[in-house]
Amino acid sequence: MSPCLSTNASLHYHAAHTPGATHPVSILIVGTLAFDCIETPHGQAEDVFGGSASFSSYVATFFGQPRLVAIVGEDFPDHFRRILSDRGVDLAGVHTREGGKTFRWRGRYHTNMNDRDTLEVHLNVLGEFDPKVPESFRDSKHVFLANLTPAVQLKALEQLQKPTLVMADTMDLWIETARDDLLKLFPKLDVLLLNDSEARLFTGQDDLVKAGRKVLALGSRAVIIKKGEHGAMLFDQHGIAVLPAFPTDTVVDPTGAGDSFAAGILGYLSTQPAVTPLSMRQAMGYGAVVASFCVEDYGLDRLTRTERSEIDTRWHRYREMLALE
Amino acid sequence: MSPCLSTNASLHYHAAHTPGATHPVSILIVGTLAFDCIETPHGQAEDVFGGSASFSSYVATFFGQPRLVAIVGEDFPDHFRRILSDRGVDLAGVHTREGGKTFRWRGRYHTNMNDRDTLEVHLNVLGEFDPKVPESFRDSKHVFLANLTPAVQLKALEQLQKPTLVMADTMDLWIETARDDLLKLFPKLDVLLLNDSEARLFTGQDDLVKAGRKVLALGSRAVIIKKGEHGAMLFDQHGIAVLPAFPTDTVVDPTGAGDSFAAGILGYLSTQPAVTPLSMRQAMGYGAVVASFCVEDYGLDRLTRTERSEIDTRWHRYREMLALE
Repeated sequence: MSPCLSTNASLHYHAAHTPGATHPVSILIVGTLAFDCIETPHGQAEDVFGGSASFSSYVATFFGQPRLVAIVGEDFPDHFRRILSDRGVDLAGVHTREGGKTFRWRGRYHTNMNDRDTLEVHLNVLGEFDPKVPESFRDSKHVFLANLTPAVQLKALEQLQKPTLVMADTMDLWIETARDDLLKLFPKLDVLLLNDSEARLFTGQDDLVKAGRKVLALGSRAVIIKKGEHGAMLFDQHGIAVLPAFPTDTVVDPTGAGDSFAAGILGYLSTQPAVTPLSMRQAMGYGAVVASFCVEDYGLDRLTRTERSEIDTRWHRYREMLALE
Repeated sequence: MSPCLSTNASLHYHAAHTPGATHPVSILIVGTLAFDCIETPHGQAEDVFGGSASFSSYVATFFGQPRLVAIVGEDFPDHFRRILSDRGVDLAGVHTREGGKTFRWRGRYHTNMNDRDTLEVHLNVLGEFDPKVPESFRDSKHVFLANLTPAVQLKALEQLQKPTLVMADTMDLWIETARDDLLKLFPKLDVLLLNDSEARLFTGQDDLVKAGRKVLALGSRAVIIKKGEHGAMLFDQHGIAVLPAFPTDTVVDPTGAGDSFAAGILGYLSTQPAVTPLSMRQAMGYGAVVASFCVEDYGLDRLTRTERSEIDTRWHRYREMLALE
């Protein structure tokens, strides 16, 4: 059977931004801020700034003005906060829980630097996260619901007036423990992101083309399966598009690559007049590029040294690498 | 460190064909003809037509006039022979060994349809293969040395007058047992193909970007690392290009996909006025497309039902899928 691939044919996504709106468009991110401890075959790092919202909100600053909804404990350091605020991230939605401790995660990467084991998780304040979207954020049009329980993702989404482009990430734990909530969430999404093993887990299909189609049938307008160093696959009504990762030989810490990828996609789309098959592929290319910076050092370290001009240089190389005419 | 990617800059490959030569250009293939027994989680097939030269010479007929050098036993069936000769493959170099038996291979694919175990190998006549390139084949310009011992590959190559584009495949067994011969072979190659696990095995590098660079430093003008369903990476003096596989949801038997990919590359390049970074990427795209047909049925079954127009249709879709402007 011949597969059907993405073309530049008719478009049925939401508009990326309201025609006539002034740039930059606001980007709302709901996710986690964390202390990460990273172990790899080549080295380790303790208590670096991590969490899905740190990577994604930082990356989003390359494209627009992100607004952040998250929860931290009293131990959350000012210099972590400043990494984001100095870049213009609006932290009005970051709640500091009195007497609470910030979320902590410890992971160990396998030799392939793709697979990892979670060694420790301390949910701490995240266990009681009841997201409050500030009044000033409720008109946000571009939304990334980074990895959180689908119930929390839904709660945040319900508080928004009229978002035009909603993306969400998920993880194996919610697929195993909160499937019903995920099934409520998916139809509300423009883009659902999940990784290859999660797509297989969710569908029981080893073949990723079949798995992607099955997940798409659950209601989101598009599904993106992330394959780490092997790139990503887009499934939508136009078919399938597979795009490679941007090759880098400096893979120090893959943590946050998926969130950077997601924020690169959303950030780029927020600058475009419409979401079309072409702008979606371009967005995935920008996502691949920002993810390639993310992995080149621990935590946010490489991203905080990245200039927008470097992103444009790699984007130019990425386009050249895939040019077939 | 920022990687260097392929551009359309200066070219230092051999010319793809002699200027002014009449088309189609001859393509010489040296490889194996075999009986394959295939086991997958979804089914199995006994005694199908296999071997590196069956897939690659069949695929080459979509682009030019392949000439084949191989050895078979007296048990090699006429209907296998006719599958190739009916498509115009010149079988003058296929030697039938009196009293001998044809090479046999039995393999079992894992659930992911990417990894496989070799269950049985009966080299039979292949164990005494001393390739004789017929006089009429010695002017061949485009050469694919499909998987054989590097000593046999070298012996075949030495008999050619002045090939302009030489590609070779190899495998883990030769990396482990015939490393010195491989090191003699590589500098004589325009393109060396090997798969991801073989590149890691050869270099001791888990990171494929680093592994590819290390293999390139051993003397071939280009290295292509095959990643199965995840596509392929090209390493040459221009840098790195990573291209995805063509997505198909009908993966019945991956055997021969690598040989089809190789023959698609060589076949396409044989039709081009020069090997440039652009024509190399296009060739890899054609390789991905023909490989996608190969895997859709056992052995050569899907390829023998493939029309050239189907190849062009998927090539068109592949280009659309990767179009970024």
